[in-house]
Amino acid sequence: MALTFYYAPGACSLASHIALIESDLTFEAIPVALAKGEQQQPRFLALNPKGRIPLLMTDFGPLTENPAILEYVADLAPEVALKPVGCPDLLAKMRELNAYLSSTVHVAHAHGPRGYRWASSAEALLDMKAKVPETMLAAFEYLEQQLAAFAGPWCLGEVYSVADMYLYTFSRWLEMDKVDTQKLPRVLAHRAQMESREAVKTVLLREGIPAMGGNSMADATPKTDR
Amino acid sequence: MALTFYYAPGACSLASHIALIESDLTFEAIPVALAKGEQQQPRFLALNPKGRIPLLMTDFGPLTENPAILEYVADLAPEVALKPVGCPDLLAKMRELNAYLSSTVHVAHAHGPRGYRWASSAEALLDMKAKVPETMLAAFEYLEQQLAAFAGPWCLGEVYSVADMYLYTFSRWLEMDKVDTQKLPRVLAHRAQMESREAVKTVLLREGIPAMGGNSMADATPKTDR
Repeated sequence: MALTFYYAPGACSLASHIALIESDLTFEAIPVALAKGEQQQPRFLALNPKGRIPLLMTDFGPLTENPAILEYVADLAPEVALKPVGCPDLLAKMRELNAYLSSTVHVAHAHGPRGYRWASSAEALLDMKAKVPETMLAAFEYLEQQLAAFAGPWCLGEVYSVADMYLYTFSRWLEMDKVDTQKLPRVLAHRAQMESREAVKTVLLREGIPAMGGNSMADATPKTDR
Repeated sequence: MALTFYYAPGACSLASHIALIESDLTFEAIPVALAKGEQQQPRFLALNPKGRIPLLMTDFGPLTENPAILEYVADLAPEVALKPVGCPDLLAKMRELNAYLSSTVHVAHAHGPRGYRWASSAEALLDMKAKVPETMLAAFEYLEQQLAAFAGPWCLGEVYSVADMYLYTFSRWLEMDKVDTQKLPRVLAHRAQMESREAVKTVLLREGIPAMGGNSMADATPKTDR
């Protein structure tokens, strides 16, 4: 199976990139410059008419959508156990999380930089952008509860899975989206825990993006003696 | 395994409802009156803090999100084959479709009736609503291409799967969303094909919703002799 992975540094493709590194599969990684609009150029559209990343080219053709790529990679490397095995309830909860991250969390964020997908006027785009800190916080408060329910360190408790990679990808965006991270201690601890993994360190280095750490913005405020 | 399924007639929960009927599993079905706001009442929120349908109560607790419920039901009834077996590429394409239907198609539609999730001003909500026919058409043109690529009758060609139930659920909304269905002959043929299945007839009857048929709005215009 020859695999070619198209991604943009720090974008949602990060989740699938981490899965590929964790899987130890051989793949070629090709960065796509979103800022230059490469994802809308004919050469890329011929591979993926959606004009989006991530894209995984496989022997059977293109595969898109993080939840599908994540589980496909997990299925290709069963010995690495990137999804729960022999436990249908945990597997169902993993898919529930992936679906929520894809259809609620990513969509909430996208109303900031890409509101033009759903409205046209400058006023509407500003309105959408203003609401992002609120919708992202609401979504992450639900995720905070989920992390509490499973009692960590991972989304599914003791079982590390592709859902952790996907959650981590979006929890990196909290500061950019001006979310009050003080209300999300478990999400931040999960973020730091992810960044202690060798696979994540490797991907951050390859994508050229920084670690975000486990401190809230408030904690990170410089302390002075005055 | 005791299963209790919470749904709203004609809502996105229809997909999981069809899967449950096709699976031949025993379950109790409980309608939730969205118009009365039952999904936001404490009794329902105690089961599902998201305040959304579908919700499947299982022995291990609540399960939400159509892509997760659909595949969970398919996994519970392997003998009925509601997902591809022994064919990783088709399974990956099924998950790709489910993810797209959840995060792009459903989200495009929701900007009509539920734009308040992402913006506040009346003008922004009107702007969003006005764009729905365009975004839904763009999404369904992609789905039309996918149906052409797999050459039918189902989303994955000869293999019927939960992705068909999920696509059908949203293709029922095309007329409501004022989409020009004349550009979507394969989507409409798929819709009619779904409605020829006994399981779908049963669910439409139980939910008290009509069949939509396979004709475009233009075809359905009454012909007169004048």
